[in-house]
Amino acid sequence: MVKALISLSGGMDSVTVLAEAIHQLGRENVECVGFRYGSKHNQYENEAARKVAEHYGVPFGLIDFSSVAGELKSNLLKTGGEIPEGHYEAKSMSQTVVPGRNLIFISILTGVAWSREIDQIWLGPHQGDHEIYGDCRPIFFHAMNAAVVAGSEERVELVAPYLHGDKVTILKRGLELGVPYYLTRTCYKDQPIACGKCGACQERQAGFLANGVEDPVEYEFRGILPKG
Amino acid sequence: MVKALISLSGGMDSVTVLAEAIHQLGRENVECVGFRYGSKHNQYENEAARKVAEHYGVPFGLIDFSSVAGELKSNLLKTGGEIPEGHYEAKSMSQTVVPGRNLIFISILTGVAWSREIDQIWLGPHQGDHEIYGDCRPIFFHAMNAAVVAGSEERVELVAPYLHGDKVTILKRGLELGVPYYLTRTCYKDQPIACGKCGACQERQAGFLANGVEDPVEYEFRGILPKG
Repeated sequence: MVKALISLSGGMDSVTVLAEAIHQLGRENVECVGFRYGSKHNQYENEAARKVAEHYGVPFGLIDFSSVAGELKSNLLKTGGEIPEGHYEAKSMSQTVVPGRNLIFISILTGVAWSREIDQIWLGPHQGDHEIYGDCRPIFFHAMNAAVVAGSEERVELVAPYLHGDKVTILKRGLELGVPYYLTRTCYKDQPIACGKCGACQERQAGFLANGVEDPVEYEFRGILPKG
Repeated sequence: MVKALISLSGGMDSVTVLAEAIHQLGRENVECVGFRYGSKHNQYENEAARKVAEHYGVPFGLIDFSSVAGELKSNLLKTGGEIPEGHYEAKSMSQTVVPGRNLIFISILTGVAWSREIDQIWLGPHQGDHEIYGDCRPIFFHAMNAAVVAGSEERVELVAPYLHGDKVTILKRGLELGVPYYLTRTCYKDQPIACGKCGACQERQAGFLANGVEDPVEYEFRGILPKG
């Protein structure tokens, strides 16, 4: 059976990807990795990822590249400015782009998978990310997959089961798979309770609303803000 | 004028790439970055890179990702076994492959170039690397370039002036450009004086021999070993 390495951020998407990989490949063929990279919500999302991995009984390890992240400019990072509030498509959300983040994550995961003789890296990009994050779009994903396959001499390949899905369809699938969403962390802010107002929280809340299910995490603000 | 970030290892190839970039773009449009990643010769090659950058009067910074390198398996790293000796094409040299190294270097450089508003990343892969290092081949390079351009939304692109050259032609060009090869470091071993016998030293010595020029660095063993 093929083995998979999951890039587990602790958010809704990557946790659903983990559930999907376990469903398809079996728990014994799945390992998870998270990153310490100096984002404001990093501590909370890594905690969430660890709890989810424990829930499923799969290995989880953290890779630290905060030394590199100091070279990158973004408001998502502790070295940057404020996290914007409001609807995700708002232009202000582009301030949360971390230059080269997915390129760097995928490259490190390729080295790790290759070193551990793991065949696939499973990732959670989806349509909802495409407008703001260039490194979540299909044209990026397919080029990057070609680079990974060539660079690793066909030892490693990328899998993105929800590349053409969106937050609503991912959540629908996750609910079918029994994903423990109460353990996940989506909010971008540097605080233990989700704010409810940042783009990430708003998109998540809209996803639960569209599925007619109550979001099991606690919010400071529960509800959808007007588009602006 | 376009700006260029050079991945400067301190070896012959990347130092010649630096000279080429300065020749084409002007010294004021060029910056260099090196990596601390736990290879046995890392300290010596980084020292060499710093001296070369000083020689040319261009900025040089080191990025530390040795925390990540601990996850990768290779005899080139301090965590791995012995460096093999003998001719470069020998199968044993594959032990010096660092899984995903160029993917990781290029990805980090993309994030750094993007953050500093630098347009191009100049790299030194060449034909001599193609057999052993999958992530130096044209098929990798072109796929990776597509991933970098897409992921950065066309802010950053890759340039590899010697992709179809070899050690002999690179050295020929570098001698024309007056590259200070006496400052460079090629040997893979964890020792200040170049061993002369590892694949990297052997390939370098063959390059100087083919150009009819004496290699200005000191060697423990000067000469070409029989192919094995």
